[in-house]
Amino acid sequence: MDETKKASAEDSLIARYFKPLATDPGAFGLVDDAAVLKTQGDDIVVTTDAIVEGVHFLPQDPPGTIARKALRVNLSDLAAKGAVPAGFVLTLALRDADDAWLEPFARGLGEDAALFSCPLLGGDTVSTPGPLMISITAFGRVPVGKMVHRSGAKPGDRVVVTGTIGDAALGLGILKGGAAATALAGDAAAKEMLAGRYRVPEPRNALAKAVRDHASAAMDVSDGLAGDLAKLCAASGVSAVIDAQSIPLSVPAATLLARGTVGIEAIVSGGDDYEILCAISENRFEAFAQAAGLAGVAVTSIGTVIGGAAVPRFLDPQGREIALHRRSFSHF
Amino acid sequence: MDETKKASAEDSLIARYFKPLATDPGAFGLVDDAAVLKTQGDDIVVTTDAIVEGVHFLPQDPPGTIARKALRVNLSDLAAKGAVPAGFVLTLALRDADDAWLEPFARGLGEDAALFSCPLLGGDTVSTPGPLMISITAFGRVPVGKMVHRSGAKPGDRVVVTGTIGDAALGLGILKGGAAATALAGDAAAKEMLAGRYRVPEPRNALAKAVRDHASAAMDVSDGLAGDLAKLCAASGVSAVIDAQSIPLSVPAATLLARGTVGIEAIVSGGDDYEILCAISENRFEAFAQAAGLAGVAVTSIGTVIGGAAVPRFLDPQGREIALHRRSFSHF
Repeated sequence: MDETKKASAEDSLIARYFKPLATDPGAFGLVDDAAVLKTQGDDIVVTTDAIVEGVHFLPQDPPGTIARKALRVNLSDLAAKGAVPAGFVLTLALRDADDAWLEPFARGLGEDAALFSCPLLGGDTVSTPGPLMISITAFGRVPVGKMVHRSGAKPGDRVVVTGTIGDAALGLGILKGGAAATALAGDAAAKEMLAGRYRVPEPRNALAKAVRDHASAAMDVSDGLAGDLAKLCAASGVSAVIDAQSIPLSVPAATLLARGTVGIEAIVSGGDDYEILCAISENRFEAFAQAAGLAGVAVTSIGTVIGGAAVPRFLDPQGREIALHRRSFSHF
Repeated sequence: MDETKKASAEDSLIARYFKPLATDPGAFGLVDDAAVLKTQGDDIVVTTDAIVEGVHFLPQDPPGTIARKALRVNLSDLAAKGAVPAGFVLTLALRDADDAWLEPFARGLGEDAALFSCPLLGGDTVSTPGPLMISITAFGRVPVGKMVHRSGAKPGDRVVVTGTIGDAALGLGILKGGAAATALAGDAAAKEMLAGRYRVPEPRNALAKAVRDHASAAMDVSDGLAGDLAKLCAASGVSAVIDAQSIPLSVPAATLLARGTVGIEAIVSGGDDYEILCAISENRFEAFAQAAGLAGVAVTSIGTVIGGAAVPRFLDPQGREIALHRRSFSHF
C-alpha cells in the first residue's frame, strides 16, 4: 500500500468505526483536532485507566468485551466519585488495522457509550509492534465541590461494598484453566458467569447520586478489596475491621471457597471487581440502602471504620485476624 | 518481591516521581481516583495524543526528551485550537519500574508542565511486555464557543505556517543514520539542531490568542504539511495553492534541499513539525503578524486558499505543479 492510500486508510478507519460513536456535538464528528466539553456550571471529574493485552484482558477475549471493559473500568471510577458520565477520549494502540477485530470492538464500545450516556469525544490511533493497549480518559460532572473523595471516612462509619467480591479474579483463573476451572468442570453456567465478570465489569453508575448524597468516602475496587480498603483508610487517616464472613459472594465464589478450592485471600486481593467501596455514617446507612434498592444495586455492610493507622484487619467468624500475605494486584 | 511490597512499589513510584508534578489543587496530590477540573465558565478543549517507542521516539532517546515530546504534541494541539493549557493526565505503559529512566522522565515532564503552566492532574501506570507508550490527554480553556476549528477557511485567505517545516523529519533521518547524516557529517551543530527538532518540538502556545483572534481555521502540523493542509481544506470545503519556495526552512534544511540530499516531498510530508497551520483573511493578516511578532513566533504566508474540492497544489518557482506521491505519515 502506498503512503497516500495508507493515510486515507487511517482516516477511513476512524470515519467508519468511531465517528458513529461521536454523538456529542462537542466531538465535531471526530474531524477536528480536539473536542469541546461544555461544562454547564459543574465541576468536571477526570479519570484515566488503560488496559493492556495479556495484563488486563486475554488475547482471545472477544473484541466487544475488551472495548466494554476499557470503558467500564473508567465509568466505575466516575460512579465511585459520585459523577455523571459526560464523555470519553480513546487511545488505541494496534498492531494492524484489522476489520474483523475493529468492527466488533467499535460495536461493543458504541453500545456501552449509549447505555451509559457517555459519548466518544475524540481519540488517537497509533501502531505498535507490541500488545494491544486501550487507554481511556473519561469525564463526569458533579455539582461544584461535590466529588466524593477517598478521604473523609470517620471512625464509626460502616464499610460498605456493592455487588459481590472476587468473581472477576476467579473468572480470570477459569479462563487460564486454573484450579477453579477444574472444580467447576461440570458447571458451565457458573464458569461463564465468573469469566463474564472478568471480561465485562458492571460499573455502578446507577449508584452515583446515592454515593454523592451519603458516602463520607468512596473509591472503586479495582486492585483487590483488601488493598483498596487500605488505601481508603490511609487517605482518611483511619483503620477498619472487616467481618470476612459478611463479604458478599456469588454462589459460585461461595462454593469454591466452601470447597477450599480458593481461600479468602484470593477473594479479597484478586482485583478487577469494579464494585464501589464506601464509608457511610450510621445515621445515613438506611437512606443509602434505600436509594441503592431503588437503583437496583445490592449493597452490603461488611465492617466498621475505627480510629488508628493500622492496616485494616479481616476477622474470621471466631473473631481471629486472618493473615493476608497479599492484599492487591500490582503492576511492578 | 512479594505482592505487598510490589503494591507499595507502584504507589511509591507515583508518590516519588509524579506527585511533585501535581501542583493543581484539583489533582488532590494524586492520592484519589480522579481529578477535578474547575471550569471557570470556559469551554474545556480536550485533546489526546500518544507516542510509542520505535514509532514516535527512538529507544535510545533521552527519557527527558521523550517526556517533553509526549506533553508537547498535546500542547501543540491546544495552541492550534486557540486554547490556554489547563492540565493533563498521563498513561504510562512501562516494561519495568526503572529509576534510572523514570527520574529523568519525570524531571523533563515536570519542567515542561511548569514552563507551559499545564499541571499533571492524574494518570495510570501499567506494565507492558511491549514497547513503551506514553498517552496524554490535555485540557485547555477557551471562552465559550471560541475554539478554532479546521473548518472555516475561505477562498482568498492566506495559508500561514509558524516556524520552519521539515526539520523534525530530517532530524529523524539523521538519528537513523540516513543520507542527511552523511551530507551533514562535518556539521555537528546542524545535525544536533535537526535531531533536537524531532525529539523536542516547540509548541506555539504563545500564539494561541492570536490564532483565536484572527484565524478562520487552524490545526497543528503533525503528519506532514501537505497532508494536514489537505485535511484543513477538506474540512473547510476549499482548496489551496502553495508557493513551495516560500515554505519556511531552517538553514540546514535549505542546505540539504539545495544539495539535492532531500527533495521537497520529504520536507512537506515528513511530519512531526508541530507548527501551526492556519488560514487568515487578508484584512487580518497584518494584525496577526504583529501579534505573532509580539509573541516571538515567526509566521510565514505560503499560499492562498481557493475555491473547489481539489487536493491543494504545491507549485515550483516556474508555477508548475510539484507531483507529491506522499503527503503525510500514516500509522496503517
